[in-house]
Amino acid sequence: MNAETEAARRSVGARRSLESSEAILEAAEAVLVENGHAGFSIEAVARRARAGKPTIYRWWPSKAALLLDVYQRQKRDVDYPDTGNIEEDLFRFVQSLFVHWRQTPSGGIFRSLLAEAQADPAAAEALAGYAAGRRARTGKLVERAKARGEVADSVDPEQVADMVASYAWVHLLTGRLDEDDATLRRAVCMIVDGIKA
Amino acid sequence: MNAETEAARRSVGARRSLESSEAILEAAEAVLVENGHAGFSIEAVARRARAGKPTIYRWWPSKAALLLDVYQRQKRDVDYPDTGNIEEDLFRFVQSLFVHWRQTPSGGIFRSLLAEAQADPAAAEALAGYAAGRRARTGKLVERAKARGEVADSVDPEQVADMVASYAWVHLLTGRLDEDDATLRRAVCMIVDGIKA
Repeated sequence: MNAETEAARRSVGARRSLESSEAILEAAEAVLVENGHAGFSIEAVARRARAGKPTIYRWWPSKAALLLDVYQRQKRDVDYPDTGNIEEDLFRFVQSLFVHWRQTPSGGIFRSLLAEAQADPAAAEALAGYAAGRRARTGKLVERAKARGEVADSVDPEQVADMVASYAWVHLLTGRLDEDDATLRRAVCMIVDGIKA
Repeated sequence: MNAETEAARRSVGARRSLESSEAILEAAEAVLVENGHAGFSIEAVARRARAGKPTIYRWWPSKAALLLDVYQRQKRDVDYPDTGNIEEDLFRFVQSLFVHWRQTPSGGIFRSLLAEAQADPAAAEALAGYAAGRRARTGKLVERAKARGEVADSVDPEQVADMVASYAWVHLLTGRLDEDDATLRRAVCMIVDGIKA
């Protein structure tokens, strides 16, 4: 096989993998909507996606890992805004996260995942990976603000993201998603005032 | 019965209640040490304290409520310092909380309680009450700093406490209790710089 054929074969393989992983994620989302979190299993997803369980386990090492990817897909409607102002960006991000958790089953799913991660090592590992990814993603808002000179050079963007996410997660876990916008803005301001250039 | 006798009777009653609730908390702590969180039950505590289950339920409406009181008693060794400097106070508080969770079974117990509260309404209620109490307690550090003129008048002490606790709780829940002191201090500084007068 020459290099060109090999590259073409790899590319087809990669595309097929992507398509099939998308199909599995869609099936998983459908199972979750129909059966709820309690009725969610790799078996049910495999049946629905007409895939083998080994295919699913090839990409997701645990039920929690798959559930976290579905959860993340459902967060399409959470904003990562770019208004040119870090306070506004972080406020809109937190605000849309609270609304998303309140108005969709996502809040309940994420609570269950957090609970599972306290007892099940595979779920704990999946959650740790997910949380690290989220810190990197939200950290980009702060990195942009650093590039604009809005935020001090010494600030670690992921630590800011960590603080914002922790505030939101604990509100979810203690049933306090009804905070008003003024309270959320004060929380964000506290952080932003602490990182200004 | 005259007023004096009535007062004396009440006082004896109150003392006896306090003694007996202390005895139950001690028994609960012993059961927890011996059986772990999984083997903890109101039945086991009642047996150990030679008390009736109704006596226990008179003071604690749920297993989670009792467990949270035991957890709080075990936190004797967590500092609420008063150094005259809010950054130092909050840093030492967070530092001693991380050490306490790492070095005693308390971290594991609190993780279990947080997990239980996601599925069991009685545990959720107990956790919400506990969290509110902790915000008020940690908020006192900030109130003192406000009185010293160190922190801006507009700052809500309990929101600061909420932010600090959220940062710590999420570290516990995601298995990141190994943060070094420099990282913890940067996190506290971010908050303190955001609330300065």
